[in-house]
Amino acid sequence: MKIDGKHYRSIWPSGSSVEIIDQTLLPFSFSTRTLSNVTEVAEAIKTMRVRGAPLIGVSAAYGVALAMQTDPSDANLQQSLTMLAATRPTAINLRWALAHMQRHLTPLTPNARAKAAFEEAARMADEDVAINAAIGNYGAEVIAAIGKKKQGTVEILTHCNTGWIATVDIGTALGAIYTAHDQGVPLHVWASETRPRNQGALTAWELGAHGVPYTVIVDNAAGLLIQQGKVDICIVGTDRVTRNGDVCNKIGTYLKALACKAHGVPFYVALPSTTFDWEVEAGKDIPIEERIGDEILLLGSNKVFPEGSRAHNPAFDVTPHELVTGFITERGVVTPSELPSLFEEKAHGKAYA
Amino acid sequence: MKIDGKHYRSIWPSGSSVEIIDQTLLPFSFSTRTLSNVTEVAEAIKTMRVRGAPLIGVSAAYGVALAMQTDPSDANLQQSLTMLAATRPTAINLRWALAHMQRHLTPLTPNARAKAAFEEAARMADEDVAINAAIGNYGAEVIAAIGKKKQGTVEILTHCNTGWIATVDIGTALGAIYTAHDQGVPLHVWASETRPRNQGALTAWELGAHGVPYTVIVDNAAGLLIQQGKVDICIVGTDRVTRNGDVCNKIGTYLKALACKAHGVPFYVALPSTTFDWEVEAGKDIPIEERIGDEILLLGSNKVFPEGSRAHNPAFDVTPHELVTGFITERGVVTPSELPSLFEEKAHGKAYA
Repeated sequence: MKIDGKHYRSIWPSGSSVEIIDQTLLPFSFSTRTLSNVTEVAEAIKTMRVRGAPLIGVSAAYGVALAMQTDPSDANLQQSLTMLAATRPTAINLRWALAHMQRHLTPLTPNARAKAAFEEAARMADEDVAINAAIGNYGAEVIAAIGKKKQGTVEILTHCNTGWIATVDIGTALGAIYTAHDQGVPLHVWASETRPRNQGALTAWELGAHGVPYTVIVDNAAGLLIQQGKVDICIVGTDRVTRNGDVCNKIGTYLKALACKAHGVPFYVALPSTTFDWEVEAGKDIPIEERIGDEILLLGSNKVFPEGSRAHNPAFDVTPHELVTGFITERGVVTPSELPSLFEEKAHGKAYA
Repeated sequence: MKIDGKHYRSIWPSGSSVEIIDQTLLPFSFSTRTLSNVTEVAEAIKTMRVRGAPLIGVSAAYGVALAMQTDPSDANLQQSLTMLAATRPTAINLRWALAHMQRHLTPLTPNARAKAAFEEAARMADEDVAINAAIGNYGAEVIAAIGKKKQGTVEILTHCNTGWIATVDIGTALGAIYTAHDQGVPLHVWASETRPRNQGALTAWELGAHGVPYTVIVDNAAGLLIQQGKVDICIVGTDRVTRNGDVCNKIGTYLKALACKAHGVPFYVALPSTTFDWEVEAGKDIPIEERIGDEILLLGSNKVFPEGSRAHNPAFDVTPHELVTGFITERGVVTPSELPSLFEEKAHGKAYA
């Protein structure tokens, strides 16, 4: 996407390093950051300088490439895979990307690994963009159909940030929104704040830059808006979808899905096939990342809660597949029960053994 | 309740003025503020220096008393009632208290009004405390019964602040929790942040001061906790309950109620009978206060969202009576359908014509 007329991806190689947009500084400072080694990549993922399941996966692949540049031994390959895997436990794209790099690099002689790793990371980045373009097109069809039926502006609720900066480019749920908007479908987005990390501010920044009409709400307001008929469709992204179609996504997603179900509002999940976890049957078996309580108790360096307060800060929740109207993937839009047939070769194999 | 060993109410007369605790400065500064005239009372209600439906009602009554002290004419009585009624549209206690003061003062000669108004406001304050004590006892029975059945710590989810500072003393939902805790029932409270005004910080401050174990969560986390079986009961307060039992309360309440319903967790609403609106049949007819977007877009004076962002900030939502397990009132605990018989004389009369 373009920033001040210049096209950016959210990650790109530069010489012997990798450049990212430091997302912890957005929306007020657009600043790139150089990552020169695997430790810096791991830090960037853990502290959410890069975030969003698809981008985390590609970042990890580049992290492996940087590690191979320094020391392409089997031992260092294993060590860097372990270090990167420990950064964030929930996003399956991370695990998928690391398993893929391991399979790709292990058979090679050490001195061939660095070049191969950079090439493979670049290929994965390009593939993410192509996948998101396809998701955008399929998602735009869903949005356009609602607009045609309504004969008016499509009111879209989203959660967290699923835009171009959460992927390599374009985005997933926001990608569908951009594509529909660019095709001329009249739409308006309710961007939920997404406490505690306020990724709604990233969504607001992206939508504003692209000229998509939006309004910010607190997460608490989703139920009222849905009840009042002010939401025609909810589209979110996801960090992991299990075989049965259960959706692990940013904390608060489940409450929105429950409200959609109560009022017959369609609830869609946009994702690349790399976000499916074919090895886990149901959402209850997904590890939920617990982040530090200070993300809630402090705002910047300001205390909001009294001294001695303790906070519980799970980063994700699980929306059961019964609440999902459809999955918007690079191969089309399907219901939870249709998933395995759409991705038959992956569903029946070992995707990242 | 006690602050540093000294007993406080949340509002009290002092000479020819009224003193409040300025709740916009909590939890970091416990500071009282003198309100000398009705305009200052209206400002304090509007800006939420005093907040919580029961306290708003009593504050308004004192506002009328201050107005009568300056000018006890019919014209000024009417003017002060109109000014106070305009401060916050949703809390029915405000409307109830003003109608009550109007009925009480109108028949009196002007020179008798100031004294009578202060006495009546003081009586209403005492009545609120007595009512909350009764709510606390009935609510504690509900909590104790769950604890007895579970044979363990009762995990209680609450929303917003319903404690002694939201009333004249003791509180409603938190009053039930204090009473159960004081009776020795092992319990732990999940205090939800309550964006955008973060009244969860007031709840944390109250619970900490009273020694009740609690943990802060973001509003988004309620669904996951309920799904994981970490909540045994949800108890909230309310700003208005209609004849059919629909519950208007702080934005975000509805989402919690939906999650409770989905997982069979009992959802209780604690309230004084002054919070029932017998003249409105259903929740859809309650006016929902819309507050300024900057409550969301700014944190203190710091911008969180990008320049040009627009926010929609409804302060309340409506939980349909089907999701309510029971109402905890000063007369006992009843289901929505049992409400009219419990308050027969009010339900069949004109409570605040």
